[in-house]
Amino acid sequence: MNLQNDLLLRAARGESVERVPVWMMRQAGRMLAEYRAVRQRAGDFITLAKTPELAAEVTIQPVDLLGVDAAIIFSDILVVPEAMGLPYEMVEARGPVFPTTVRTIADLDQLRLADAETDLGYVLEAIRLTKKELNDRVPLIGFAGAPFTIFCYMTEGKGSKTFSIAKKLLYTDPVFAHALLQRITDSTIAYLRAQIRAGANLLQIFDSWAGILSPEQYRVFSLPYIKQICDALNDPTGGEIVPVTIFAKGAFFARQEIGQLNCAVVGLDWNMEPRESRALIPGKTLQGNMDPCVLYADFAQIRAEVKQMITSFGTQRYIANLGHGVYPDTDPDKARCFIEAVKEFGVK
Amino acid sequence: MNLQNDLLLRAARGESVERVPVWMMRQAGRMLAEYRAVRQRAGDFITLAKTPELAAEVTIQPVDLLGVDAAIIFSDILVVPEAMGLPYEMVEARGPVFPTTVRTIADLDQLRLADAETDLGYVLEAIRLTKKELNDRVPLIGFAGAPFTIFCYMTEGKGSKTFSIAKKLLYTDPVFAHALLQRITDSTIAYLRAQIRAGANLLQIFDSWAGILSPEQYRVFSLPYIKQICDALNDPTGGEIVPVTIFAKGAFFARQEIGQLNCAVVGLDWNMEPRESRALIPGKTLQGNMDPCVLYADFAQIRAEVKQMITSFGTQRYIANLGHGVYPDTDPDKARCFIEAVKEFGVK
Repeated sequence: MNLQNDLLLRAARGESVERVPVWMMRQAGRMLAEYRAVRQRAGDFITLAKTPELAAEVTIQPVDLLGVDAAIIFSDILVVPEAMGLPYEMVEARGPVFPTTVRTIADLDQLRLADAETDLGYVLEAIRLTKKELNDRVPLIGFAGAPFTIFCYMTEGKGSKTFSIAKKLLYTDPVFAHALLQRITDSTIAYLRAQIRAGANLLQIFDSWAGILSPEQYRVFSLPYIKQICDALNDPTGGEIVPVTIFAKGAFFARQEIGQLNCAVVGLDWNMEPRESRALIPGKTLQGNMDPCVLYADFAQIRAEVKQMITSFGTQRYIANLGHGVYPDTDPDKARCFIEAVKEFGVK
Repeated sequence: MNLQNDLLLRAARGESVERVPVWMMRQAGRMLAEYRAVRQRAGDFITLAKTPELAAEVTIQPVDLLGVDAAIIFSDILVVPEAMGLPYEMVEARGPVFPTTVRTIADLDQLRLADAETDLGYVLEAIRLTKKELNDRVPLIGFAGAPFTIFCYMTEGKGSKTFSIAKKLLYTDPVFAHALLQRITDSTIAYLRAQIRAGANLLQIFDSWAGILSPEQYRVFSLPYIKQICDALNDPTGGEIVPVTIFAKGAFFARQEIGQLNCAVVGLDWNMEPRESRALIPGKTLQGNMDPCVLYADFAQIRAEVKQMITSFGTQRYIANLGHGVYPDTDPDKARCFIEAVKEFGVK
């Protein structure tokens, strides 16, 4: 592998970099007119995600249009439950919905272990196509949801502010909860290994709903499954080893424990202060954490915020990003301003 | 004032108590069949909140039915924007909706400063009626939303996971944002002073959306307004001084600063660890913080969690509560189990 721009990989591995690498969560998305055009051609979100040529096209757009230092494969964390036998729909302005939910061992018995090559071949094909078309300009990031976050959607059936149905099951039927979490974990490990074989250069685990759990529940129902994934991906008998990023939104209370996992990078949201996070997570690369709402500010303020962020994190062992996905109504010129400011202020 | 049970007030003031006092956020609500019957009689939520006799009736129910050590007046944080001239609707299964929003100085010019006695007389009357009917058995808690949380609803117009419209205004028009926040603050101070005159024994400020702000934004757009409220209520020329509780959900990063305000009690959500919070907030009474989902567990586990919580907080300078409002589908017997366990394990 001879990447022309390997800043992200070197930063992830803790190697010295001449400048801070930068990308944006949800950079391939509705913010870009060019993305919206492809999505309209596809008809809907799920068709777009399932058509490798189109998924590869929108994956590469931000590299050309925004100048980011990495591409992230265009997909969705909910392809894993679908591959386990639980299809979902994407409802406009409402988000994902599972017509059937999984709330008992009997429900779980209806599901299979996802087979990455057959059930998720379209993602792997999109990765291969993207790698070919990227032509080693920048690294490609693969990803999956953390088991607890996937559990939330499979049990609740839709997005929720509290996920109280999902959390209720942790108390009323912990045996079922652990069985489902284990099935998701096994499916996810197979899926992420297949992503590496297809060409992913780095993997990110999104625990988007980490913040709804108490510290104790997080230690029981989320961390052990993320640990299994990290350990499996760090096993050289499983194939090539690539850096892994854990992004557990809202889990400020678990930073120390996440920092002790077999991962290279820890992602931070904008609630988590850079210097405090450095102290809690020594020896890892940190990623984040600007509030995506800062991109609504004027150019001067965006530049000032980026400068401040880099001063707080430092230029080494650091990957600049937002603290959450970019909002769809963001002006792409503001996103470019963010990226260019990192390139300007992030020089060693 | 000769309250028969003044445990809550003594704990709030940092005085010695023979046992930990306990109440539950949203204790007067849909969990109770007796509440649902009164609400059906009223027709809808807003009519119930605006009819002092009915509001007093549901306020007192949990004292009789659950055995809590305090009543909290049945009302809503959104009565303040309504009193400023911005009416709202409560849409079933969707939550509050403001048909008109406030996003410019011109919009703000259409609003008035709330006059507590005329615009919110129905809440004050409900407080007076409740005090009379409670007959000094337990204290009565009054409340209001924190200015930033009220700002979120007035600008966004409805609930949201990100409140990105509200937060956008902090960046695009900070002059307007501060003007609206100040108007809300002035209205809230007048309203809370009127609640004290009507008989409230303790006041709680709910900053329900504190957690969506970065630490820096919180210091600029939320804390200074909460501070104004605390300072105004601590001014003896304004009338009787009652203890004030600040509950800023999700603002783990601001615990030290909140602990330095002119308030008696700091409320914690279930993400915030008791011992760490004690260290960050010395010399104040703490309130919280059990995950309301624990009430889905069996009786033995609820008791074990309560025991653990009291061990972590200690029995002094502590008010037992949930870390958020009780969920409507909670079994009232589980709520009673929580309260009885506090009374059992919370003895000095």
